[in-house]
This record gives sequence, C-alpha cells and structure tokens, in this order.
Amino acid sequence: MQIRTSLIFAGLSLALSVVSPAAHAQSRLATTQIRSASFASSKIGISPDRNVSIYLPAGYANSSKRFPVIYYLGYFFEDHSAPFANNDAKALFDRAIADRTIGDVIVVAADFSTPVGSSWYVNSPATGNWEDFMVRELVPHIDGNYRTLATRESRGLLGDGTGGYGAIRFAMLHPDMFGSVYAMQPFGTGPSIQPTHSRPDFDLLARAKSMDELEGFSRIFTSIYQAFSPNAERGPLYFDPPARRVDGRTVVDAPVMARFHERFGLMGLLPTYADNLKRLRGFKFDWGRQDPIADHIAGAQIFSNRLVEFGVPHEGEEHSGGFRDRHWGSEGRVQTDVLPFFARHLVFHAD
Amino acid sequence: MQIRTSLIFAGLSLALSVVSPAAHAQSRLATTQIRSASFASSKIGISPDRNVSIYLPAGYANSSKRFPVIYYLGYFFEDHSAPFANNDAKALFDRAIADRTIGDVIVVAADFSTPVGSSWYVNSPATGNWEDFMVRELVPHIDGNYRTLATRESRGLLGDGTGGYGAIRFAMLHPDMFGSVYAMQPFGTGPSIQPTHSRPDFDLLARAKSMDELEGFSRIFTSIYQAFSPNAERGPLYFDPPARRVDGRTVVDAPVMARFHERFGLMGLLPTYADNLKRLRGFKFDWGRQDPIADHIAGAQIFSNRLVEFGVPHEGEEHSGGFRDRHWGSEGRVQTDVLPFFARHLVFHAD
Amino acid sequence: MQIRTSLIFAGLSLALSVVSPAAHAQSRLATTQIRSASFASSKIGISPDRNVSIYLPAGYANSSKRFPVIYYLGYFFEDHSAPFANNDAKALFDRAIADRTIGDVIVVAADFSTPVGSSWYVNSPATGNWEDFMVRELVPHIDGNYRTLATRESRGLLGDGTGGYGAIRFAMLHPDMFGSVYAMQPFGTGPSIQPTHSRPDFDLLARAKSMDELEGFSRIFTSIYQAFSPNAERGPLYFDPPARRVDGRTVVDAPVMARFHERFGLMGLLPTYADNLKRLRGFKFDWGRQDPIADHIAGAQIFSNRLVEFGVPHEGEEHSGGFRDRHWGSEGRVQTDVLPFFARHLVFHAD
Amino acid sequence: MQIRTSLIFAGLSLALSVVSPAAHAQSRLATTQIRSASFASSKIGISPDRNVSIYLPAGYANSSKRFPVIYYLGYFFEDHSAPFANNDAKALFDRAIADRTIGDVIVVAADFSTPVGSSWYVNSPATGNWEDFMVRELVPHIDGNYRTLATRESRGLLGDGTGGYGAIRFAMLHPDMFGSVYAMQPFGTGPSIQPTHSRPDFDLLARAKSMDELEGFSRIFTSIYQAFSPNAERGPLYFDPPARRVDGRTVVDAPVMARFHERFGLMGLLPTYADNLKRLRGFKFDWGRQDPIADHIAGAQIFSNRLVEFGVPHEGEEHSGGFRDRHWGSEGRVQTDVLPFFARHLVFHAD
Repeated sequence: MQIRTSLIFAGLSLALSVVSPAAHAQSRLATTQIRSASFASSKIGISPDRNVSIYLPAGYANSSKRFPVIYYLGYFFEDHSAPFANNDAKALFDRAIADRTIGDVIVVAADFSTPVGSSWYVNSPATGNWEDFMVRELVPHIDGNYRTLATRESRGLLGDGTGGYGAIRFAMLHPDMFGSVYAMQPFGTGPSIQPTHSRPDFDLLARAKSMDELEGFSRIFTSIYQAFSPNAERGPLYFDPPARRVDGRTVVDAPVMARFHERFGLMGLLPTYADNLKRLRGFKFDWGRQDPIADHIAGAQIFSNRLVEFGVPHEGEEHSGGFRDRHWGSEGRVQTDVLPFFARHLVFHAD
Repeated sequence: MQIRTSLIFAGLSLALSVVSPAAHAQSRLATTQIRSASFASSKIGISPDRNVSIYLPAGYANSSKRFPVIYYLGYFFEDHSAPFANNDAKALFDRAIADRTIGDVIVVAADFSTPVGSSWYVNSPATGNWEDFMVRELVPHIDGNYRTLATRESRGLLGDGTGGYGAIRFAMLHPDMFGSVYAMQPFGTGPSIQPTHSRPDFDLLARAKSMDELEGFSRIFTSIYQAFSPNAERGPLYFDPPARRVDGRTVVDAPVMARFHERFGLMGLLPTYADNLKRLRGFKFDWGRQDPIADHIAGAQIFSNRLVEFGVPHEGEEHSGGFRDRHWGSEGRVQTDVLPFFARHLVFHAD
Repeated sequence: MQIRTSLIFAGLSLALSVVSPAAHAQSRLATTQIRSASFASSKIGISPDRNVSIYLPAGYANSSKRFPVIYYLGYFFEDHSAPFANNDAKALFDRAIADRTIGDVIVVAADFSTPVGSSWYVNSPATGNWEDFMVRELVPHIDGNYRTLATRESRGLLGDGTGGYGAIRFAMLHPDMFGSVYAMQPFGTGPSIQPTHSRPDFDLLARAKSMDELEGFSRIFTSIYQAFSPNAERGPLYFDPPARRVDGRTVVDAPVMARFHERFGLMGLLPTYADNLKRLRGFKFDWGRQDPIADHIAGAQIFSNRLVEFGVPHEGEEHSGGFRDRHWGSEGRVQTDVLPFFARHLVFHAD
Repeated sequence: MQIRTSLIFAGLSLALSVVSPAAHAQSRLATTQIRSASFASSKIGISPDRNVSIYLPAGYANSSKRFPVIYYLGYFFEDHSAPFANNDAKALFDRAIADRTIGDVIVVAADFSTPVGSSWYVNSPATGNWEDFMVRELVPHIDGNYRTLATRESRGLLGDGTGGYGAIRFAMLHPDMFGSVYAMQPFGTGPSIQPTHSRPDFDLLARAKSMDELEGFSRIFTSIYQAFSPNAERGPLYFDPPARRVDGRTVVDAPVMARFHERFGLMGLLPTYADNLKRLRGFKFDWGRQDPIADHIAGAQIFSNRLVEFGVPHEGEEHSGGFRDRHWGSEGRVQTDVLPFFARHLVFHAD
C-alpha cells in the first residue's frame, strides 16, 4: 500500500497544479424523503415516506456536469444510511475518486427493509410494490432532482446479500434502466443443498400472533415468504407456507413450494430473462468460500454455471473470505473490485 | 418389511415341502416382437416392429401363479438383448432368486434405441412416440400375454443412464402404472457445471447431411435434441439447436435453450410432478464418485437435494465406483442393491 | 460370495432338520466388566473397570460352535450399552439373524467415552491407552471367555462417528486382528472446508479451570485435542492448543497444528497404512448428503477419493439422509447395508 | 473501457506537461543467456546455457533508479519467450505502466521447460537442479546485471499452471528471497478426485524406449514423476512409477505413491512451511470454474481452505472462466488482477 500511496501523491500533486480549485471541493452526503404511492396495499405497515441517502462526489458542487449513478441495495434490515453509518462508505468513495480508482459518481441508497428483514425488492400483495418504488419513483426522483446521466449506460446497481438478489433481478426485468450490476454475496441464486424448509420453525410460524414473535431463520423466511409466497388474506403473517409440521415431521406442500420457487430463485427466472442480462455492459457477483452456510456457495456456483449455459457474459468470483467479511475497508472488495468494475463499465460523460 | 418377512416364511415352508421338484425348473429368456403404432410419424427411420426380451423365472413354468414385473430400460444404443447378451443378466437373476435375494420376478427389456443413441423414452415429433409405446403398448402387451401381477404395486422400473432418466420420468408421469423405481446412474437429472453446448460440435451439426456423419458427443446430443428440442420440419437432423457457431464462437439461442431445458431436466419437471413421486413405494438412484464426467455427479446430487426440498422420499446413493463400472457381476449393484430394493418394494403376491 | 452360498446351503439343511428346537432358543445380552491396566497414566479420571456389552445370538446357547464377532465402536459420549438401550439393537440383530440377513454372530460394545466426549480410540498421555485396551485387553478377553472364531477373517469392526474413525484406524494399525470394517458417518476423515479452529472457543479453553466448564464444540474439541495434541503437563485440559485468541482474533500456531493433523486425520495416515487396508476382506463407510455440517461430507468424499489414489478397495457411500438419522430401525442402514456387508465378508465357520 | 481510456488520457496529458522527456522513453525486451552449473547431473538432456527474457520498463533507460522485479514462471513446454511471443505481454505491461495500474517494474522470464513438459521448478536427480538454478543463479544474475531493488519486498513471483506451482513452492522454501506471489491456475495444489494414476498409460510408460514415444497425459506425467518420483538409475524415463499395469488392471505401489505425494502436493508441504507463507506481503492465486478438469478446481479449493486452517493470509479466487482462457488481453486477469496485486504488494522504491 505504501507504494500505491506514493503513486497517488504523485497524481495529486500533478492534479493540484492544473485544477487546484476543484481540490478544495468536498463531497456531500444528503438525506431526503420521497412520498411513495407504492405501499398503499401493504399489509405489514410500510410507511409511504421513504428515506434515501445520496452521496454527491466532490466534483458535483462546483460544476454543471452530469454524473453516473450507482444504486446501492442493502442487506436484511439495513436502511438507507447503513453503508455510510456502519462502513464509512463516504470516506471510501472520497478516496477512491481522489486516487482515480473511479471517476466522479453519485451513489444512492434507499430503505428497502421491512419489519422482518427485506422486501426482496419485489412487488407483493403482502408487503407492497417495492419494484415499482424503485423503477417508477426512486430512479425518476433522482434523475429529476440531481444532475445525473439519465441513461442505462450510466446507471449501475450494487447490492449486498438480499440487495445482490435485487440488483440481479432488476437487471433481468428492467434492462432499459440499468446497464451494469455488481452483486456482493447475492442470495436466492440457485438451488440449495439443505432444504429451505429446514430453516424456519413452522410450528412457530403457525402459532405466531404477530411478526414480533419471530426471530432468526423464522423471521428471515417470513420476509422471503411474504415476498414470494404472499397471501394478502392470511394474516397475521400474510403468506402461504410451503411446508407445515404434522406429528413432529415437516410435510412439504409441493404445489405451494413449486409456486414459491417459480417466483423466487434467480436460476428459475434466468431462462426467461437471459437475453436481457446479455445486454448488460458489465455483470459481476462474488461470494466467500468460507461462508459457514454452504448453500450460499453452492447456489452462487450453480447460478454462475447456469449463466454460462445460457450464454450470459459475467464474472462470478468466489474469494477466500467468509460471510460478508470482505466488503468494506481499504482492502475490501468495494475498493479492490466493485469500484474498478464500475470504472470500467459505467459511462461517465454525456455523448 | 412386512412383505419381506411374509416372503421369507412362505419361502421356508415352500423349501420344506416342495424343494426338490422346483429345483429342476429352469428360468427362460424369451424374445418377442410387438407391432407398434407409435412410430408412424417418426422422421428418423424407426421400425414399427419392436423387439422385446422377457425373462421368466424358474417358478413361472410349473405354476399358475402371477408374478411382479421389472421393466429394464437400457443405455444409449442398447437394444432389448443388451443386459442378457453383455452382462449375463439371466444367470444373475437365476442366482438371486435361488438364494432368495429376491422372489420370483419377470424382467422385461425392450429396444428404445435410435440411430443416434436413445429415444430418451419420450414422445417427439422427430423420433416417434416412445412414451406411448411404453405405456399404451408394451405394458399392456406383457400383462395380456404373461401371468403378471398387473398393478402398480407389482410393477417396477429399472433404468441405466438414459434408461434411468426414462425410469424416473415414467414414474413422474404415470404414477398409476409404476410403483417403484431404481435408476442406475441416471442422466438428465440436474443442472450441469460444464455447459451442455460445450459438448457437441455445432459446426458439424450445421453442415451434416445425415445422422451418419455424427459421432461422439455430437451424435449423443443429436439424440437429446431430437427428443427435447425437436423440429419435424428441419431435416436432416430434425431439431432446433440451442446454440450455433458464429465466427468461431458458440452463441446460445436463449429462447430455444429455455424450451429445451423446460422439457429435458428432471429437476425442472420435479415441481409439477413431485406429488406423483411421493406415491412411489420405493425410489432409489445411484451414481459413481469416480465418474470422469463431473456433471453426472453434480446433477445427481442436486436432483437428490431438490427431491428433499419437495419432500419426496428417496435414496440417492453415491458410491465409490466409476462410470457404469459397478452395475453387473456378483459384487455389482444389481446384485447388492437393485434386487434387494425390489425385494423390499414390489408386491410379489395377489391380495 | 462363495461363503454366502455355503451359508445358505448350511442354513437350508439346518432349517430342514433342526428348525423347531432352534426356534425356541433365545439370544442374550450380557454385561461384564474388565479390569484394565491401560488407564493408569490417564490425567482425566478414567476408571480401570471397563464396562462391556456382549450380544450372544440365539444359536450360541445350545451349541458348541464358535462364532464370528463384530466389535461395535460408539459415538461421542456413548457408553457400552448405547446401541441396545437407545436403538433396540438386540431385537434388530435377532430379526436379521432369523431372516438370514446375516448368520449367527456375536456383537461386542465397550465404553470408549471420556468426560468430554470420546477417547477417539487412541493411546494418549492425556487420556490413557485406549488403543491398547482394545487390542491387548478387550479382544483377548472376549476370545478367552466366549466361543469366538478368533481370527481376523471372523472379526469385524463397526463404528459410528468417532467410532467410525476408530474402526478405520484399528484396521490401519492392526491388520492381523481385524478383517472387515464398516464405518457409519466416520469423523476425522479428510481436510475440512471450515477451519477446525473456527469451532471451539479458544478464550474459554484458555481460561477454563476444569473440563466441567466446557460445552458444545469446545467440549468436543477438547476430546479431540486431548487425543491428538496431548500434553500431560498442561492441566487442567491437558493439551497443546493449535490456536489461541489474540486481540479478538484467532491466531494459529502452525507447528502445533501440523503435529495435530499429522496424528489426527485418516487421510494423513493413509500413505503409511494403505497396504494394511488393502488386506481387508471388506471395507465400507457411509455418510449423509443432508448432514448440516458440510465438512462431514467433504472430508468423507476426499478420503474415499484418496483411497482410490492409493489403490485401496472400498465402498464409500453417500446416502440422502441427514446426520446419523439413517442408522437404525427396520429401514436403517444397519439393517439394509451393515449386516449384509458383514454377511458377505465375515467368515462364519472354522476352516 | 471507453471511460477508462478517457481517464487515462486525462492522466497522460497531465504527465506530459510535467515530465515530458520520460514520455519519449521506450520499454525494452532483452534476451540473454546464463551458463548454468545446475544441470550437470541431469539425465534428460538439459542444456547448461539457459535463455532468459527481461522486460525493462520505459522508465529504466533514462534514469539511475532501481526497480522491483517480477519473475514470471511459465506453463508446460513454455520457454522464456512465451508470454511475449504468444500473449503480447510487452504491450500489456507498457499500457499498464502508462495508465498507472502499476509502477515501473522489471519482468524476468526464464526457460524452465524439459523435453516432456516442465521441470516443476525443483531439484531432481533425473532432471537437474532447477530450484538451485532459480535461487542461486538466475536471481543473483539479474540483481548483478540490472538496477533492481534486490530485496524480498521488491521481488515478486508470477506463475501460470506448473509455474503457479513453482511460484508457491519458491515462496514456501525461500521466504527471504520473495515477498509476494500470484499464481494463475496453479497445479499440484491439493488432492484430486480422479486418481492421478488414471491419467498416464502405464503400459506405454513401461515399454517406452525413449521420451519421444510419449504423448498427452503420459508425457505430462513423465515430467511430474521425473520431478517428484525420480530415479537416476532407471532409464530411459528416470522415475519410479507409483503404479503399473497387471493383467489389464492398474496396481498402485503404495510406498512409491506415498513418497511421490510427500514431495509433490503443495497441501502436503504446507504444514512444514506455513510460517514462511505467513511472511508474504501478498499471496494470491486463481482458477476457473469452467475448467473441464474438475480436479484443477477441487485441488485449488482444498488448498485454499487448508491455508485458512493453518492461518495463512491469502486470496484464492475462483472466476467464471475456463482453463487458462482469462489470463491475457485487455480484460484478462494479468491486467485486472495480477498487476494491481503487485502494485499493492511490491515495494517500488529503496528505503
């Protein structure tokens, strides 16, 4: 790192001599709220006022230029502020732009969490229309209120876990809107080794009087089932369970399970949307070999292989890290892989 | 287990009373021909006269009893006689019945091969209606001409490779006809690691003037595509290729690939037919860890895990053998696993 | 197969002549105690009086014949009585012998547990000389006090988990004593995916004042380290830890880790003892694909492949079950695989 | 890429204004020969005159500075010129230095090939002392004749396949000499799935009168056995075979196989040399998920996991590529991963 720093200083001193005024500009982290129409039908208490964080690079203030945008999609329970509050993302973006790892870029993070974890970024009669919120409200709002390069080529998606799922799914369904995708440790990729029905406690799901009683996998799978096996008539949890407990054994309801998987897994969506993914300028995802949940690894490997089967160019990289322990920091993958990826694949200037 | 116990007691009393005369009876291997109506529309030259081998156990001759039937479905290019001509199956069945590994049972093998490999046991506008031949002609013919126990409980399927695929697929689609399935090293189970389009030579497939020019994977995949991506108008090979070569690169036609996989893979059929598989009295398949084609292993593992996901009882056993090298012989799996499996799961007597 | 055939004929003639009196004989489960000299140096409080369960088949009582012996090696914390008290093994053996799944056989189970789990069946300055107890005391005691066929050909090893490890290790080290091995879900087979040092709590191991304070993986790994990284001078836990916590991070002591693995893993022992394993008449182990600990699966697969590399005949079978949930009961693998295995590979009669 | 190019041009124009003379300097690819004393005992005809390619960056010519060195270790059959002649490495290094992906660096490639493939970079009584050649002759020669930063911190190893093996092994054995290692698709990492003895034709190896008769895996494995199972007395192939054919079957010689593996596999060397690897400033290797030889993948994964077990920091990255198809070119991993790796981990200036 010592060396690189010296390179950077060399670069900075050159920059200073030519464009010194710009060097004094500061990046800015703004927070705003959008009044949304997408959650009127939600059964789980989602506020129509949605919080959004917006990172504006140092170059934004003193110019009239337009900039590309990276939409950051968060992990379970993460709100709009998480990368900035927990991972010092503002300073990391500042440094990466200063050392030319990436050009000036806007980063937007909105709150896609629900009381039991994640919206999974989809429309659902149980949870509300999160996909609509993204593509009909958030992106237009950002393009309408900031100097963005409002084309797919200059619009990237970066997701983490559930957000990685959302990023790939948005790329499948809205190819005219997004041109590059990086998903860190995406969930919901391919088939699992351990059955999904081994994770939640179906006795608890059957007797729970409210979402507050849920915890661990039961809580997380409630968010999954509300998104992909929803039933707006079936409170208090508002989903059709793909399995139930009978005499101490788990019994699978195969037709419900079939519908659930038809909607959920990215591998299942792939045949329909492969051609849309082929239009991406850049498509990468990664995961850690030391993840203690073997299915995160197996699913991602199978999904990557399936992308090859359907001829979809991409990079699926398995690193030596554990579960979500390599994302941030000066040696993290946002620094070493994600930003160089967007530097290569986003368009940073109007034609 | 109840069945087996009763068998044993029956066997013991039989041994005590009539052991000497029975010892002189001989098993018999008959060959017959069925005139089929299922291949009239075939484009690839399938004879309407179908050959069938029928093993009748020693106990068949001197009795008026009815017997259960195992339908043996063969491997690529194997005709009706293969297990008997190549693997000494008659002697093996004789010994297994003599030493009570299994009770008296009829074994039927018909010719399901095509000029380029296998029919894959399905109806296809390119190759003819092989599924119809099985369920509308072969099984009724056997039940009409031999003293069979003509119920699903007494009808088993045993397949090898492509035949293993066929066995599991028949169990999915015709649960009223078959009650137990053992698939040795079944193909077409789950998704592959290496893309399917890496196997055939698409340049050769594009320029071939007849099926005779094909060999190796190109020949085998022609049989796959004729079964699952058929096009009766598109001679001389009669299929829509899911990929083609352009400027020396393989380009996937995603919609054709999607249709192909929708019809082909057992994992893709599973959500629709899981409840039928749950009705099986016994369901087992196996494969070898030393198979040099890693995808045979990966696909079978994923399929087994997916059966667990859908709550389908089964045994998926990975052994230490290589590719198809453990099936036959006195230490082979037909002896140590297949026949004990059918001994436990077939019903050997009328109610 | 020769053996089995002769057995069957012997069985038949026996059935014909003496079937009624034999039917009244009963099997017997005896318990005895051996005063052992192998635990004098143990630091962890092992009683010199060792409990042993002995199953004598129905045919034992009214005859002067000699019988083969299966030594059953138990799981973590299991004492000598476990298979009989928890798994109804006596009734299962009775039925299997009655229905001729296997011939008359003696089954012996001794207590190899320690306060923190398992002795792992090895000599250790921390835990005592368990290997010596087995080969110098238990086997000679059984041969001296019961009508056994006291040869390797008629002596089998059956182990479960840690006992599976012990069974394979005894076969490696004492080929003149044991002629066949079946290990159910053996531990300590091959290298793991998750590091071993991720399992125990090294802070707890460092501060514990006695073994009583340990639980879960910390308890289990203490039994592993006492067996394979022992230090008789280093109370109260008596082992050299291969890792420690420093500033909240786990730091590996590579030389200690190297010594630990040199003694522990069966894959590491294999190159030295491969030729001994080749002398086995039968060698089989199995494990479940649905085991939630992925390393049980990965290690067993790698070990099986390594046996092939060294030319050791064996069967390593991965089934669709979970962790230790398929061993017992009328459809369990003791019934369907283990006893048929010993029926094929044990010698049931003196020459 | 369009964007990045524009960034680069911005950087270049700045550079031009301040240090224009340097901009006219050109990089240079030199070839030299070293007279070696390391091959006197070789049995396989290795010339004592060793060819070496040396890339000198543009900044070398007009300065008196010293520069770090990357030693490039080639693949089977590759001589010193391969990366430059086949992969346009000179232009790639030129561009990467120009756009500041990496600072000025010397790259050295010598010929480590043998008549049957690779020396595997080790001393062997059959092939000569290749390790000695590297550490006693090549590195001292380069440091003696070029303005290098002659410390481990400024000396990196980059290897491809067999060269990746050599790179990791040199780092294990000579930690005072090398400070960072990047191995692309290294061989000889961990245990294989398919047995090594399934690859060569042992009948051919037994009857061959000279190395010229060998081809394919038989040729490649001869190079492996000459390196790791050498026998200087046993012409014409000069190795002890770990297996032989008897009656059409492959019979493993377990003691020879044990010695072979003790010397060969990086996983087997790891326990002894783990602490040396921990001294590296940077350690990374990669491989492709689409490699048709499943063992390249399995071995690398197991080795990476074993490094974690021994607490060795590293990055083991599995990408979506095939076998060696992602190394070079403007989107290749030398560009996107290898050079950024050395930019971070090499020291580019004297203290």
